[in-house]
Amino acid sequence: MAEKASVREVGLRDGLQLAKDFLDTQIKLEWARAEAAAGVREIEVTSFVPPHVIAQFSDAGTVASTALTIPGLLASALIPNLRGAQTGFDLGVAKLNFVCSASEAHNQANVRRSTDESLADFDRIMDERKARGLDGKTAIAGGIATSFGCTIQGAVPEERVLAIASAYAEAGADEIMVADTVGYANPNQVRRILAAVVREVAPLPVAAHFHDTRGLGLANVVAALDAGVRLFDSSLAGLGGCPFAPGASGNINTEDCVYLLESMGFDTGVDLDALLRLRERLPQWLPQEKLTGAIERAGLPKTFVCAHAA
Amino acid sequence: MAEKASVREVGLRDGLQLAKDFLDTQIKLEWARAEAAAGVREIEVTSFVPPHVIAQFSDAGTVASTALTIPGLLASALIPNLRGAQTGFDLGVAKLNFVCSASEAHNQANVRRSTDESLADFDRIMDERKARGLDGKTAIAGGIATSFGCTIQGAVPEERVLAIASAYAEAGADEIMVADTVGYANPNQVRRILAAVVREVAPLPVAAHFHDTRGLGLANVVAALDAGVRLFDSSLAGLGGCPFAPGASGNINTEDCVYLLESMGFDTGVDLDALLRLRERLPQWLPQEKLTGAIERAGLPKTFVCAHAA
Repeated sequence: MAEKASVREVGLRDGLQLAKDFLDTQIKLEWARAEAAAGVREIEVTSFVPPHVIAQFSDAGTVASTALTIPGLLASALIPNLRGAQTGFDLGVAKLNFVCSASEAHNQANVRRSTDESLADFDRIMDERKARGLDGKTAIAGGIATSFGCTIQGAVPEERVLAIASAYAEAGADEIMVADTVGYANPNQVRRILAAVVREVAPLPVAAHFHDTRGLGLANVVAALDAGVRLFDSSLAGLGGCPFAPGASGNINTEDCVYLLESMGFDTGVDLDALLRLRERLPQWLPQEKLTGAIERAGLPKTFVCAHAA
Repeated sequence: MAEKASVREVGLRDGLQLAKDFLDTQIKLEWARAEAAAGVREIEVTSFVPPHVIAQFSDAGTVASTALTIPGLLASALIPNLRGAQTGFDLGVAKLNFVCSASEAHNQANVRRSTDESLADFDRIMDERKARGLDGKTAIAGGIATSFGCTIQGAVPEERVLAIASAYAEAGADEIMVADTVGYANPNQVRRILAAVVREVAPLPVAAHFHDTRGLGLANVVAALDAGVRLFDSSLAGLGGCPFAPGASGNINTEDCVYLLESMGFDTGVDLDALLRLRERLPQWLPQEKLTGAIERAGLPKTFVCAHAA
């Protein structure tokens, strides 16, 4: 039996965050349904931020609550704070992905508070989950943005990444997610930091979130696999850009990441042909967005065997 | 002191092979001069094939003999057979890169002979080098194309790759080059095959030649580094396509590969800023070609430190 490794689709959240047009709510749900049917287990379907901050997520409530009914799908939502968590609890969302930057400057720019204030908020979220009797029902992940460097402050101390991971774990997080938000990571750094985080929070699962801004996204996935990571955030058709580097790529591409993992013998549970059929629809849905995709252009190798079908 | 790892520029050969326009001889040489000045040690400047086969290389003699005079540059040329080698010997070319496919079907399609016939030709080349008193003067590399699979025949036996590497080494090759000609390789396969080749031919240097056809080019570089490889073929601005997958990428991109290696702490000897200044000129020189480049689009991270300057 092949070892398992998974992608978590973040195109509907990270990918759409910078999109020029509002993607119709029904299309968002159609995308989620088709990708769940192709075998993607978790999709981050929206973000619980105020609509005046990101209008794309003004339909967050409808998207999240409808996505909850999609068979076999773990529909998760990003939350920046306690308020977002409360929305998620109210709607009965099965998984909430909290995020705090390892870079002080980035956290201030992103959520207008210090990282310590964000972590105190995380504690309040965990308290409220308990008070609502949702322990063991609503999963909560702790994400660490700018773990490999920051466009504002530059270098980010690795001890800070470990300290935040440790704080999340102690507070009772169900998963730790380590993110290269701005595409600064290199494979040596990924191996070192992710191996340290995996050790720090074991046996909690650790996910990695890479951007392909500087072309190293999939190389960093391989490095993270070496460090024991088996869950990767990615965006279908590489949807999304980088606010700090105009014209540059956003998240790593879902279909290319599935191809990488399956070609290396990992069972992703994903039907790559079905995923590629869904991917073909994105240019019509998002005509203004720059989409990427090596497999979409080149096709699969003659020698390719899907590990999960083997 | 940082460990060394190098790129060999193949844009003037592999990159230009499919180019729509003939690139002026003087521009080819200007490119080679500027890239040598930026610190790239070896450039494969041309291919000794008959002009009726690839018109782009009708100026091979001029390019090769002039490039020999560029200070600090190891100017090499591809040779498909004894005749190409003889041209190289006559011109005094310092290094000749012979190539034979591991796939029988691909070798037949490429040079219209069996792989055993190609290897017999390699022996004749080595004999002629000796007869001309060029041992220790003209270096000869043995390249193995389609080492990770073939668009024509599909799977390629790994034993065949090892057998060809071994035959080259026994015949007196100065370097072995293992190529993923069609972009089929994945990082697990790269680690396994390259580690086996490195063991088989030690202490001969082993180079890797990856195409980015399916987006795994730089991930495969990282895997090859794990296997002990320290020399990588690449093409400036990712020049070149794939004859088997229209629209797909060609060789891995030189400036992105240098960025990868330097960010991982390897000293490439290359001044990345100078390389990027040269890269800026390619769109004018080759207006019809599709060029790539993550660093060209996104810029270097604020945290980037050149290992060779550190």
